[in-house]
Amino acid sequence: LLGVCGSVSSLENGMARTPPMGWLSWQRFRCNTDCVNDPHHCISESLFMQMADIIVNEGYRDLGYQLVSVDDCWLSRERDTRGRLQADPHRFPSGIPALSDYMHKRGLSFGIYEDYGNYTCAGYPGILGHLEIDAFTFAEWGVDYVKLDGCYSHPTDMDRGYPLFGYYLNQTQRPMVYSCSWPVYQTYSGLTPNYTSIINTCNLWRNFDDIQDSWESVQRIIDYYGDNQQVIVPNAGPGHWNDPDMLIIGNFGLSYEQSKSQMAMWAIFAAPLLMSVDLRTIRPEFKAILQNKGVIAVNQDPLGIQGKRIYKDKGIEIWARPITPVFQGHYSYAIAFLNRRTDGTPSEVSVTLRELGLAYPNGYGITDLFDGVHYGTVLPDKRFKVDVNPSGVVLVRCQVIKGSAGAAR
Amino acid sequence: LLGVCGSVSSLENGMARTPPMGWLSWQRFRCNTDCVNDPHHCISESLFMQMADIIVNEGYRDLGYQLVSVDDCWLSRERDTRGRLQADPHRFPSGIPALSDYMHKRGLSFGIYEDYGNYTCAGYPGILGHLEIDAFTFAEWGVDYVKLDGCYSHPTDMDRGYPLFGYYLNQTQRPMVYSCSWPVYQTYSGLTPNYTSIINTCNLWRNFDDIQDSWESVQRIIDYYGDNQQVIVPNAGPGHWNDPDMLIIGNFGLSYEQSKSQMAMWAIFAAPLLMSVDLRTIRPEFKAILQNKGVIAVNQDPLGIQGKRIYKDKGIEIWARPITPVFQGHYSYAIAFLNRRTDGTPSEVSVTLRELGLAYPNGYGITDLFDGVHYGTVLPDKRFKVDVNPSGVVLVRCQVIKGSAGAAR
Repeated sequence: LLGVCGSVSSLENGMARTPPMGWLSWQRFRCNTDCVNDPHHCISESLFMQMADIIVNEGYRDLGYQLVSVDDCWLSRERDTRGRLQADPHRFPSGIPALSDYMHKRGLSFGIYEDYGNYTCAGYPGILGHLEIDAFTFAEWGVDYVKLDGCYSHPTDMDRGYPLFGYYLNQTQRPMVYSCSWPVYQTYSGLTPNYTSIINTCNLWRNFDDIQDSWESVQRIIDYYGDNQQVIVPNAGPGHWNDPDMLIIGNFGLSYEQSKSQMAMWAIFAAPLLMSVDLRTIRPEFKAILQNKGVIAVNQDPLGIQGKRIYKDKGIEIWARPITPVFQGHYSYAIAFLNRRTDGTPSEVSVTLRELGLAYPNGYGITDLFDGVHYGTVLPDKRFKVDVNPSGVVLVRCQVIKGSAGAAR
Repeated sequence: LLGVCGSVSSLENGMARTPPMGWLSWQRFRCNTDCVNDPHHCISESLFMQMADIIVNEGYRDLGYQLVSVDDCWLSRERDTRGRLQADPHRFPSGIPALSDYMHKRGLSFGIYEDYGNYTCAGYPGILGHLEIDAFTFAEWGVDYVKLDGCYSHPTDMDRGYPLFGYYLNQTQRPMVYSCSWPVYQTYSGLTPNYTSIINTCNLWRNFDDIQDSWESVQRIIDYYGDNQQVIVPNAGPGHWNDPDMLIIGNFGLSYEQSKSQMAMWAIFAAPLLMSVDLRTIRPEFKAILQNKGVIAVNQDPLGIQGKRIYKDKGIEIWARPITPVFQGHYSYAIAFLNRRTDGTPSEVSVTLRELGLAYPNGYGITDLFDGVHYGTVLPDKRFKVDVNPSGVVLVRCQVIKGSAGAAR
């Protein structure tokens, strides 16, 4: 087995060159299996087909949200007579291959959930003892994305198990994005994740807590990435991403301002944009946040450099992410001004770009990505002010002005 | 002075027979005095006049929101040559009597803020040493409501000072609602408030923290009233109310669900409904919450009995408030089902009315006050189910069915 592990030390599946975008069922629909009393909200093929239709018809797909992924609670309690996983026959009467086919016919990719352990977190069969057959089953079903959770397993086994399942995924020769929960379980157990191995195995991985439907939860996640950025941020890049968990925009717990804050911060994080919301009933202002092209473009920037917190004082944070275009060695930047304060009136933040590390002498063209305001060209020493609402954000794109150097001021 | 205090031991100003309703500047506009750079949001006569116009023109007044009250930062830094308080002349160029008159002409009442101490919380002149002259100044200006804060004073002095200022208010013979911060400052200092004296002095009083623009803050307040209900709740009644602080509905920090939760809980609390929001820009769904007639009717129920938490488990709370009509000794009730959970999917709560203490044999007519659904007549032992969204609420009115007793079950 050691030999096998050695041979899978480099992830070369060519997938997820930018952070995955799509829809996942967990945060909004959880493990609701009661299709008798709650047919419109239970985990069933119908739910995923409805979401796929909306993703196509309402423009989400064409903005990049191309994945529709099943999460926990899709399985039967037992494997079939040949030892293969099978979906719950009442809730997925057409079977998983048909659901996968449904997605592919609509230009979408199809994701599935499993767990490296004896059981999934909700108690359905896990893959332990069946890694090879399950990888090949997924390939045969046309799966494009596998989220592998870590309940009911030993975190110490994960350094072997996650790469081994990745090896089998590769062996199928079907390209599948591989989403891992490996580091978060190890961190909780007091282990130090081996990020070199994780990067070489997984396309994305969860570092921290499951997101919950609250601004408090979003803030804890933001703090985790800020407080641990020296260790976490360098691991992100094309093909391998930190995953701060799903977008909860449009659900019950975030205000409009807080929803913009999550979207902006997930763009700074180069995070997967995995919506988990009822797209049938989402209010238009939240849909507009999820469909904001400028913010999506920052998230999907081809350089794939995750941003960092560069300022934090009195409830005001400033985060910066280097993005394209790059000119004469100077990056463009996405800058998020995040207001963590709860006094009910906006806070003014006043900075120079040079203070933020943006020193290109010809200056930067600045655009507010939520309200669309263009600030024109701003030189590095010009003072620049934004008003940031409580629990809100201002996200600007600062684009290097290409031209002859040294002309400025 | 002791003699004086003795003579003011009963509050007989006839005011606030139901909880005051209106608009206060603090939570949304704070101490923004920068009318040069931020003329539309600074504390100025113009702001209060604009709010008054909207309160009249958009139906708030006719629903009960009849108070417009100035909060801190309206004052000049110095008293006038006669030792009287004066408004900042640049921000209130017409003067306070004109502003008060503006309100009265529109069928509104006018409130003002001061502090029983050397300074207000924001550092403007306090009333200490000027109690009599300030009370008479307010009366002369046509003030209808005085909020008296407690910064820069000794909480031990408040047992004497708050009644003394109330005595002078009464001496003016102008009826003024008297809003006190007395118990909250004493509690913070480790003192036990003398609620008998407070009830006999103040029309309303703050028990706990200033509200902030967050669901977390609203939850802390809800917990305070639930955890201390044995001491706090009996003090409320017509003319004397616990004040859990302003409504933050329509601002930056609460989601739609959370906003309904605050409105519902403030109705259960028999709390003053003091909006602090920019009524010029509030979104229609939040305005609809503030203008919900059924919820306002619960809040303003003439019995004036504050509700209590009667169930709390696994993030689900049930709160009950006895209201009119009363028939054969049986109260009607407002019942709030509050979901404190953050897992992203609604929770079903199933109860019988008898479990909630509603045992009238003919049953209760039940109406959901937010979605308007009528459940018809529900007998005490009939199981009754509601789905409650995360950080949301279901508020129902359970009205006794008048009829011949003993017919049912």
